[in-house]
Amino acid sequence: MYYAALSKKQAGYIRQLAQKKYRLHENAFVLEGKKNITSLLFSAYKIQFIVSTASFFLENEQIFNKLANAVPLFETTPKILSSLGSFVHNHDALAVANMPSETTPVLPSSGIVLALEDIRDPGNLGTILRIADWYGLSTILCSHTTVELYNPKVLHASMGSFVRVQVHYVDLPLYLTQVHVPIVGATLDGTDVHRFAFPPSGILVIGNESKGIQSAIQQTLTATVSIPGSGNTDSLNAAVATAVLCDNWKRRLQQP
Amino acid sequence: MYYAALSKKQAGYIRQLAQKKYRLHENAFVLEGKKNITSLLFSAYKIQFIVSTASFFLENEQIFNKLANAVPLFETTPKILSSLGSFVHNHDALAVANMPSETTPVLPSSGIVLALEDIRDPGNLGTILRIADWYGLSTILCSHTTVELYNPKVLHASMGSFVRVQVHYVDLPLYLTQVHVPIVGATLDGTDVHRFAFPPSGILVIGNESKGIQSAIQQTLTATVSIPGSGNTDSLNAAVATAVLCDNWKRRLQQP
Repeated sequence: MYYAALSKKQAGYIRQLAQKKYRLHENAFVLEGKKNITSLLFSAYKIQFIVSTASFFLENEQIFNKLANAVPLFETTPKILSSLGSFVHNHDALAVANMPSETTPVLPSSGIVLALEDIRDPGNLGTILRIADWYGLSTILCSHTTVELYNPKVLHASMGSFVRVQVHYVDLPLYLTQVHVPIVGATLDGTDVHRFAFPPSGILVIGNESKGIQSAIQQTLTATVSIPGSGNTDSLNAAVATAVLCDNWKRRLQQP
Repeated sequence: MYYAALSKKQAGYIRQLAQKKYRLHENAFVLEGKKNITSLLFSAYKIQFIVSTASFFLENEQIFNKLANAVPLFETTPKILSSLGSFVHNHDALAVANMPSETTPVLPSSGIVLALEDIRDPGNLGTILRIADWYGLSTILCSHTTVELYNPKVLHASMGSFVRVQVHYVDLPLYLTQVHVPIVGATLDGTDVHRFAFPPSGILVIGNESKGIQSAIQQTLTATVSIPGSGNTDSLNAAVATAVLCDNWKRRLQQP
């Protein structure tokens, strides 16, 4: 045993954070997975403490030695670790970190900002974070009805990307009426995305998985785009559509 | 009660089909979800029987009246229905259908064929089926190590697309050495997909979620392509990458 053992009180605290109401009350969340933990260590997030197996501590000895003064480290068994979080098997580590305080979104002067209206599936939001990170997007706006960023399934699917993309929950219909940039909506009857002349900067709106973009937001759109398909099936998964649209926007900016 | 009640024996049979070994032994699988059931009804799949709630029967009365002579229909409660399948809540229906017999893949004379090497996540395979269906692809080749098509999570994520796309499990490295068409592999160091001159037809190889394309298959590739990104994160989700590559291939074919 290199580090202190986890107390029952701390174990109870971690288990409580599985519930959104406790996360909001404590302003803290639990993070699992090698890639997520590694990303967290290199981020501005304030880490409350880390619980790790002896083998994960050993594997990352240098980094944990440096951290030991700044972040409390606790050692436990894979069995107890798995019982604390959302993973069925966790042989590595778990971190508890503070949610950063809410800030007002600042739109970048160039490039794409994603606006997610009512994305409900946590896997979709996590995958969209990873896509945004891939395409170098710095900002995502979410409607208040979009799934919570700190839901364990969102964090898991984001594969560490959540530390590099700013996510803001806003009154999306109101917000979109107040900005003065192109607002492009993903719909089933818009301009063919392969032929659409994307603007140098703007907001890309992705609607709910089954209902699409609600009418209050449709009224704020300056253009709509669609992904050409075979017509066999009526929709693509929301995260998949986001990636295809971001890819076309990026291509258009690089090859005008 | 419009239709016969489900027997205990049938309920036991459905529950057994949750396991792959029973699916293979019985050559049958369980299907849940409105969209999947509707797609199944309009497909060539042989349906053994359908179990539905009274309300789902009522909602789809016309179609079920027509089916009543050809397919045994059983009525049950949402509670029992949910206890039979993989869904936590199933208020609609569940079907048991036969797996079609294995056929030798026939490569289409034009367009893209997907080859999936060792895709392990059932959600990824299901989403890739939906993407293939969207882009009008008729054939998917899977390595024997790729997750089983009739896994409930694969079928769920496919949203009915599994009935419209032919999936063949083959010895993929061997198969790829025997075909004489362009074989394009998705890698992290290939030609920029926005600039790549896709051939009019060929095979697109997608590798394992964490390991990529294995060396035996890499040797069969006639070209490699990559999706340009910011460099912040080292990979896109496999299904997301598949969609972006299919979209670029389709665009190139339509706008050479």
